[in-house]
Amino acid sequence: MGVEEHRKTAPKRFKFAVITVSDTASRGEREDASGRFLLKAFEGEGNENVYYKAVPDEKLSIIGALVEAFERGAELIITTGGTGVTHRDVTIESLRPLFDKELEGFGEVFRLRSHDEIGTAVVLTRATAGIIRSGGRAVAVFCLPGSPNAVRTGFEILRREAYHVLKHAGE
Amino acid sequence: MGVEEHRKTAPKRFKFAVITVSDTASRGEREDASGRFLLKAFEGEGNENVYYKAVPDEKLSIIGALVEAFERGAELIITTGGTGVTHRDVTIESLRPLFDKELEGFGEVFRLRSHDEIGTAVVLTRATAGIIRSGGRAVAVFCLPGSPNAVRTGFEILRREAYHVLKHAGE
Amino acid sequence: MGVEEHRKTAPKRFKFAVITVSDTASRGEREDASGRFLLKAFEGEGNENVYYKAVPDEKLSIIGALVEAFERGAELIITTGGTGVTHRDVTIESLRPLFDKELEGFGEVFRLRSHDEIGTAVVLTRATAGIIRSGGRAVAVFCLPGSPNAVRTGFEILRREAYHVLKHAGE
Amino acid sequence: MGVEEHRKTAPKRFKFAVITVSDTASRGEREDASGRFLLKAFEGEGNENVYYKAVPDEKLSIIGALVEAFERGAELIITTGGTGVTHRDVTIESLRPLFDKELEGFGEVFRLRSHDEIGTAVVLTRATAGIIRSGGRAVAVFCLPGSPNAVRTGFEILRREAYHVLKHAGE
Amino acid sequence: MGVEEHRKTAPKRFKFAVITVSDTASRGEREDASGRFLLKAFEGEGNENVYYKAVPDEKLSIIGALVEAFERGAELIITTGGTGVTHRDVTIESLRPLFDKELEGFGEVFRLRSHDEIGTAVVLTRATAGIIRSGGRAVAVFCLPGSPNAVRTGFEILRREAYHVLKHAGE
Amino acid sequence: MGVEEHRKTAPKRFKFAVITVSDTASRGEREDASGRFLLKAFEGEGNENVYYKAVPDEKLSIIGALVEAFERGAELIITTGGTGVTHRDVTIESLRPLFDKELEGFGEVFRLRSHDEIGTAVVLTRATAGIIRSGGRAVAVFCLPGSPNAVRTGFEILRREAYHVLKHAGE
Repeated sequence: MGVEEHRKTAPKRFKFAVITVSDTASRGEREDASGRFLLKAFEGEGNENVYYKAVPDEKLSIIGALVEAFERGAELIITTGGTGVTHRDVTIESLRPLFDKELEGFGEVFRLRSHDEIGTAVVLTRATAGIIRSGGRAVAVFCLPGSPNAVRTGFEILRREAYHVLKHAGE
Repeated sequence: MGVEEHRKTAPKRFKFAVITVSDTASRGEREDASGRFLLKAFEGEGNENVYYKAVPDEKLSIIGALVEAFERGAELIITTGGTGVTHRDVTIESLRPLFDKELEGFGEVFRLRSHDEIGTAVVLTRATAGIIRSGGRAVAVFCLPGSPNAVRTGFEILRREAYHVLKHAGE
Repeated sequence: MGVEEHRKTAPKRFKFAVITVSDTASRGEREDASGRFLLKAFEGEGNENVYYKAVPDEKLSIIGALVEAFERGAELIITTGGTGVTHRDVTIESLRPLFDKELEGFGEVFRLRSHDEIGTAVVLTRATAGIIRSGGRAVAVFCLPGSPNAVRTGFEILRREAYHVLKHAGE
Repeated sequence: MGVEEHRKTAPKRFKFAVITVSDTASRGEREDASGRFLLKAFEGEGNENVYYKAVPDEKLSIIGALVEAFERGAELIITTGGTGVTHRDVTIESLRPLFDKELEGFGEVFRLRSHDEIGTAVVLTRATAGIIRSGGRAVAVFCLPGSPNAVRTGFEILRREAYHVLKHAGE
Repeated sequence: MGVEEHRKTAPKRFKFAVITVSDTASRGEREDASGRFLLKAFEGEGNENVYYKAVPDEKLSIIGALVEAFERGAELIITTGGTGVTHRDVTIESLRPLFDKELEGFGEVFRLRSHDEIGTAVVLTRATAGIIRSGGRAVAVFCLPGSPNAVRTGFEILRREAYHVLKHAGE
Repeated sequence: MGVEEHRKTAPKRFKFAVITVSDTASRGEREDASGRFLLKAFEGEGNENVYYKAVPDEKLSIIGALVEAFERGAELIITTGGTGVTHRDVTIESLRPLFDKELEGFGEVFRLRSHDEIGTAVVLTRATAGIIRSGGRAVAVFCLPGSPNAVRTGFEILRREAYHVLKHAGE
């Protein structure tokens, strides 16, 4: 079955969660523009938001939000923020060990697209994705950087491929 | 400072959590004797129980309970069950990736003591412990097997050493 | 020595193996079009096929076929199938731990080329390659997806680079 | 269910394989006393030997023998040799990556027993065990050192616990 | 803050080290053209070279040079050579375990740029980068292949992005 | 060849290094009693000290000292300190990734002996050992805790087994 066919037969709607990882946003010291964008963008495609939370850059806070999102029924979880190289950035380090399978291709495509916009600056862009299986379900997790540009790029990829990924992960 | 001195100056009370990992106990199909024993035993020493839950043998259920226990303020988290080699046993596989440091010595001492009781049958005894740091705190996690004998052995070690571990982990 | 020179001095022929990883193909329930394509394509370039087998999506079946191929003298082993994210897909998980060195560049180039054809759908494309050393020999292993398009893309890369990889790996 | 009960209800016979890992024994340059001992000892308990092979200290030779033993139906696979620290010793490095679960307790008990005989010399004793799942089956793998004393110690543990391990691994 | 702004506010000068990994160059048997190029190119941008050494393809030699460069105050360390797949190539294997965070994006951008020049031959191009934290400092390490083309490509990326990486890593 | 024979034929003298890992000792704020003990004890057996240094609890300081010791010709390197669970303890985390082979048995025997003295308090005792190969040589590294009791226990094991380990590692 070709890629186009897959897309057609894939479920057209899904339950999703947005987790913003940011010390300042979690304390309400700044507006969470990237998280808001993701919520609106995915809902605008007819998907159902089942969880949203802004958490500080702390391992157990990030993991805890992921589990809560899963328990609310999320099939797709998007995190934004905490993917950089400062000493506070721990999103990828926190979630990667939970992945049953990593989708190396997501980070690559994300950087390939970003490269068209910001050129070699993508060397700093850490983004990844993975599948977690638990309780007879599979959830797809996508870790995006925190900038408005990054979430836009991430959304452009996910609006096209999320159905596809969820269909396969659920098999 | 010697071991005995450490023990004297260590805090004499702590907040603890018990997580029973068992499909049947989580569905209420059997009494959770091992979890009950741990609750009573640690409370009997004057410690404060801040969390108790029986969860199924599923990765995100186990991790979710650990995070909840941490958020309730637990300094010591004891899990019982799910440490064996059947295909459903995933406690150690779920929690070990979260450890910042593993205490290999705990599993060894646990098996050394068990060896006195059950001899070479300890080859099947998988138990371990580790320290997780997050949000400026450190929590010590001990993964015990599910049998009544195992939790008794684990308690005998922890009643003596938990203070000591927490004191160091907090430094 | 430049890339072009390397290509010229590299051995022009090699012994290769094809391993199709597919539950249905291994039971003979469907024709193994991708495996057949690879056999024909590499033989068409004058290379010698020393091993071909269709195996189910099972860790020890996949590893066993790889060892048999190696024992038959294969210098290049191509697997097709089992690279996706369904719960049955275990090809990469089975073979990656055997690699002495992984060629991250292969998966990237594979996805870069696929991106030209299928766009962002490559986020699901898991492909990788590695070198295994044993018994004084080195073997290069390439794990391709199972679709006809994927093996064509893989072949286009390998027809150009296989000589080059084998020459270096053998040094 | 207690340890004693488990032992009683466990299957009393099993199919086993012996793999001797030794450059010299694999070339027939010395008699494989340790391998022979294991064959005789386990058969003497009524178990059925389904595979025996002496292989050189090479990754793919060791892994290949393990897969062949599995395909012959072995439920228990014992390797002897190649566990030391010379540059040729690769048995543990070759097989550990294939384990779905490692039985840390086996290496410990093995060294605990050896410690009674050879004292602190056990610091050099590398032995381990693990469970591999594939094709709906589970196989238990025990990696013993190559010396006659080591295989005797290993057998003394396994004659008592092999049933127990296989019963649980198969659940 | 956008990428362009980051670049403007980033420190414009840094201390750098060049480590050439090559058996022949370390013995003085051939001129170290790639190392010389890197020295000149980075100095030409006004950066200060604090360390240069040609070391053989040996784990502890490579690691030792990295530590010396760090102790001389290097903020950026560039290695050239030893990234291939011959049995002597160990640069990435030696340094990756020391990384606190790996910059997967660097290897990808490096190969993307190389792909424009050498096409699919980049499957053999192993290059990576990472951040190491120690003693209250952060150092960025970039591992480039040894060929003159490779160091030119690496320099073109780093002249634009090194400031950016160092600024973030230092936060 | 039995253990006793091995001991007899093993080289009776070796070059050794002592690395004390301690923030306070490295700043000269306290006397390094444990380091001094190790120097005296091993020299008392006729071995040659080729390196001694007190370094702070920092990854690159610890690794740097290990490389310097290796370059001075050390065959045996003993570290003391930094093996605990406080947030400053990083000795094992720094050195374990450099090991080509870990000697799990050393940590176990160390804790087994300590258990006789301090009982269950050994759950906090993290000690390990490993072999590193580089430049055609092999070096054995033993990481001991920092307390005077710990180095005495470590010395009692090493005075008996160091010859034995070095002989095998060098093969």
